[in-house]
Formats: sequence, structure tokens, C-alpha cells
Amino acid sequence: MQAVIFDGRQITVNDIPKPEPPPGFALIRVLKAGICGTDLEIVNGYKGFKGVLGHEFCGIVEQSDNSELNGKRVVGEINVSCGHCNFCKNNMARHCSNRQVMGILGLNGCMADYCVLPLLNLHQVPEKITDRQAVMLEPLSAACEILEQVSLQGNEKAVVLGDGRLGILCAWVLAGLLEDVTLVGHHQEKLEKAEWRHLKTVINKFNTSEKADLIVEATGSASGFREAVSLCRPRGTIVLKSTVSSSIRIDLAPVVVNEIAVLGSRCGDFNDGLRMMLTYPDLKIERLIEAEYPLNSAVDAFRHAAETGVLKVVLKMD
Amino acid sequence: MQAVIFDGRQITVNDIPKPEPPPGFALIRVLKAGICGTDLEIVNGYKGFKGVLGHEFCGIVEQSDNSELNGKRVVGEINVSCGHCNFCKNNMARHCSNRQVMGILGLNGCMADYCVLPLLNLHQVPEKITDRQAVMLEPLSAACEILEQVSLQGNEKAVVLGDGRLGILCAWVLAGLLEDVTLVGHHQEKLEKAEWRHLKTVINKFNTSEKADLIVEATGSASGFREAVSLCRPRGTIVLKSTVSSSIRIDLAPVVVNEIAVLGSRCGDFNDGLRMMLTYPDLKIERLIEAEYPLNSAVDAFRHAAETGVLKVVLKMD
Repeated sequence: MQAVIFDGRQITVNDIPKPEPPPGFALIRVLKAGICGTDLEIVNGYKGFKGVLGHEFCGIVEQSDNSELNGKRVVGEINVSCGHCNFCKNNMARHCSNRQVMGILGLNGCMADYCVLPLLNLHQVPEKITDRQAVMLEPLSAACEILEQVSLQGNEKAVVLGDGRLGILCAWVLAGLLEDVTLVGHHQEKLEKAEWRHLKTVINKFNTSEKADLIVEATGSASGFREAVSLCRPRGTIVLKSTVSSSIRIDLAPVVVNEIAVLGSRCGDFNDGLRMMLTYPDLKIERLIEAEYPLNSAVDAFRHAAETGVLKVVLKMD
Repeated sequence: MQAVIFDGRQITVNDIPKPEPPPGFALIRVLKAGICGTDLEIVNGYKGFKGVLGHEFCGIVEQSDNSELNGKRVVGEINVSCGHCNFCKNNMARHCSNRQVMGILGLNGCMADYCVLPLLNLHQVPEKITDRQAVMLEPLSAACEILEQVSLQGNEKAVVLGDGRLGILCAWVLAGLLEDVTLVGHHQEKLEKAEWRHLKTVINKFNTSEKADLIVEATGSASGFREAVSLCRPRGTIVLKSTVSSSIRIDLAPVVVNEIAVLGSRCGDFNDGLRMMLTYPDLKIERLIEAEYPLNSAVDAFRHAAETGVLKVVLKMD
């Protein structure tokens, strides 16, 4: 089969053997795979991952011990946990201390004709949801994780910094629940694409006299963190959504003085993403996809995804 | 009266007029005033404060509209709030957007023969508590703020980084509630002084296979933050206790990946500090005082307090 491989230096599309699913795993024929900010970071050295890239996909189960799932369209949670450690036993399997993470840590990814994942990780995709929507479930669920971490009443003022893929998804998740959500970005065309319901968008610099209760930092830059701190009310919350592969210089004194809570936030539960997609069919999440490339043009696709101002780029195997 | 004044460049002890208490304020004859890490930061330019230094004191009310309090020994909360803003109305007066802070922001401090504070800020000191203990109430209450911010069950594993004044107080506050608390520092003599109950102390580097649920960062350094992140379990909590006047270079990716909550933590409620002092008479908090200087030797006292390895230095006016 064909697969997009990162060898620690460069990306190539190679012919490799089709994977053999271990016990409890399913063999999945991949239909589409998304390129995520984390993939771009990995290619820049983050986590030192080598192997088949990719962790956002939609595919069809070709072979598994669950006959009901064979032939069905699925998406998959990317953390493969041990099931035995304290985290697994305490409902924190995504933090399993022995975990492998598809395309990120110790496990080949989904940018290939086939991939394998435990049956436990799979979610069947309802018919109403298209392939182009389903491939967006992983990042949408990651955005939904905010709601698991922050208890919202509905009257909060929220600001999302960063009009990239994840920033827009976070803004949409919050706009589903809160009246007062502002997305701040640097690209007019992205902000226009992000418009949905009562979501407010602001270009470049958000000036507000009233500070916000909740800030989502999705720029991944030092200036984004500084802006988040300056926009956050005392005892407010900043959710950190982006992983960047380098250190940044920041001043933590205002975090202390204003007793701000800074919460790291990573993957989410796919059930939350699925629920959101079904609740808001008008969201048309697939509008974030800017381009689709065949698998063997993955190098071009990565180049495109890394360009400033580009939203989601997807690989298609179908 | 004599007062310790910082003019933006240096500390001097000057003769200035005794303050006139505005309506609602009390005139307090200061008995003792402590030198805190924040005072040392101010002298290095933090907050740009100019005026009479100091915010930790114990004194006697000389003049006020509350005849019952006149002649009584008091300590005082340092944030002077407006009483009208949203924060004041929502039980967050310490975050009042118009606040003045004694010896830190817009209000003269307590390193003088006399100071003024609103009657509302004062707490009478029970007879059982000595002057040397009472002057430690402000930092002890600040340490108690952790308990307001983090909900503890009692079985958590906690680590406090930094064997300075505030680090030791935080370790004591936690050791009053939790069985498993470790204080990590770099000074054998400070760690020995910190011993209390079942508090564990570790010199230099804490090696543990089992990560902690709660880390208190009280070193104020970039390496302290990094160590806190490396010791914190996924979904654990790091409390930031020190304000430093400069930026530090840190990597936030592990905070995101492990979904760590980083909580800024500042002043606390004096009632919590008083309660702790009365509950644990065996604590002997005054053992953190290394030296007392007369007010007119404040320059020497500041020099002493700034030395590495020195705990609390106090000015005495009595």
C-alpha cells in the first residue's frame, strides 16, 4: 500500500506492506486524512516521531473481530491506552502513561491506504455525516474538550485568539453555548469563513473595555499568550490549545496577580464532536477544507497546509 | 515620623509627616513590619511603586471611628477596594479594578512609625498570638489562598518547590491538610527550619516515580516552572505563588499535552491565616524570622533580606 512517511528529515510517499491488525484491532481502509497543525509541528521535529504520519481520518472497517462493524464507515480516537494504569482506571485513558498515539507517538498514522486502531477507539459515522465532515471530527472533538474542562453558565464573555483551523473550531464550539463569543485573527478571508450564528469576528487587535471571562489561546505564539493574559479578567480562565515545538518568553506575574487559571487542553471525546455535528447541521464544518490532494501528492499537500492563511488540507484515497 | 521610602532608585529612611486617616480609615502605630519578596522586587523596579514601602505589619490602632478597636492590636488586609465595581460586588474585592495596595500600588506602606488602612481591612489579633507571629499573618494568609483555589480531598500528593519564606509557608499550609507533602529546596538550614509534622524535605532535586497531583511553584525561576511541569501528573495542578519582575522562557507544550491547570495565586483571607495559627500553636511560625532591625536601619535590613538563603527579616518600631 501507499503511505506518507516521515523519516525524521523529510516526507516521502512510499510503498510499504499493508498492516496486520493485532488482536482487538481493526484494519481500516482510509478514505480521507486531514493535515493538522500537530503534523506540521512533527515535520519540524516535535516529539521526534518517525513513521506513517496522520491522526485525522475517516475510513471503512475492512477486517475486525466485530462483524457488525465490518464494512462500516468509522472515525477513530487517536490515543491507544493500556487499560491497566491508574489513568485508564480513572477515566483518563487519553492520559494513559503507556499510551501510543496514532501518527504522533509509537504508532503508525492514517495517511496511508490502510491503518489499524483498536476496536474500542472506533466510532461509527452516522449516514447524515459526509466523509468531508467526518474527517473533521478529530479536531472538532479536541475543540469540544474545552467544555469538559471549563464549567460555563451561558452568560460568559469569551474570546478566541487565532483564526487557524483549531481557533475557528473552538470559536464554533463556544458559540454553540454562549451569546458573547469573539474570534480574533489576522486573515480577513478566514474570519469570513468562520462566520456562524452570532459569532463576532475581529481583525488584528481586539480592543475591549470589559475583559473576558474565558480566553482560548490558539495562536501558539508568545504574543498570543501575552494578549490572552491582557484580555482576561481577574480570576478568569485561559485555555491553551496549541502545542508549539519551542519555548516562548512570557511574563507570568500578571497570571499570579490576577489569579488567572491557565488550562492546557488537548484531545477530546469523539462523542462530543459527533453530537455537535448532528445538533448543528447548518455549521457546514467542511467549509474549512481548502483543498484535497491524492495520497501520492502528499508532499505538495503538506507544503500547501504550511502556507500562511490556509485552513484544512485533506488527503483523499477514495 | 520615620518612614522607609523608595524613590524609584534607592531606599532611604526619612522624617515625614504622620499620615491623616481619611474617613473610614484607622491610624495605626506600627509595632513590626516584615520584608517580603515583593518588597525586594519593588526595589528592583516591579510595579514602578514609589513611596513608603511595606505591607506586612502588626500594630496598634491609635485613632479611628470604631471606639472598640482603638488601642487594640491589629493586622491588616493590604488591598483597599472601591466597594462598587463588579469584583467588589462579587466577593472578589482583592481583585477590585480600582484597588490600591498598601506599599505596592498607590498607597503608602507600613514601614513607618504610623500607617493608615480602612477599618474594614483590619483584624484584631487574639492575645495568644505574639507580635512576632502576627507580622507573619499576611504571608501565611497568602499561602492559605491555595486552599481557596484548589479543592483537596486529603489523599493528594503535593510538592512545594522553593524553600524561601513563601515556599515554607505553603508547605506548612498543605501539611496541615495532606499526608504526603514534600518541600524541595536548595538550602539545608532552611529545610531543617521548615520541618513540621510529617512534612518531607528534599535538597536540590526531587526524584519520584509517581508524579504529584499538586505542585506549588515558589521559586520564581524558569527552572522552577520547568521542574513543576515535569513533576505534575496529567490533569494535575500547578499553583504559581511568586511574582517575578521579568519574563522567563518556558515551553508550554507539556502543559497542553498533559492538560495541566496552572493557577496564579496571590493574597489570601486573613481569617484563614488566623485560623491556621490558632489551630496549630506547635507551628511556631516566628521561627522563620532570622533578624529584627530598628526602623532606621532599614537599608541594612533590606540588604540582609536580599541575601541568598535568608528567611524573614523584620523591622521593629517598638
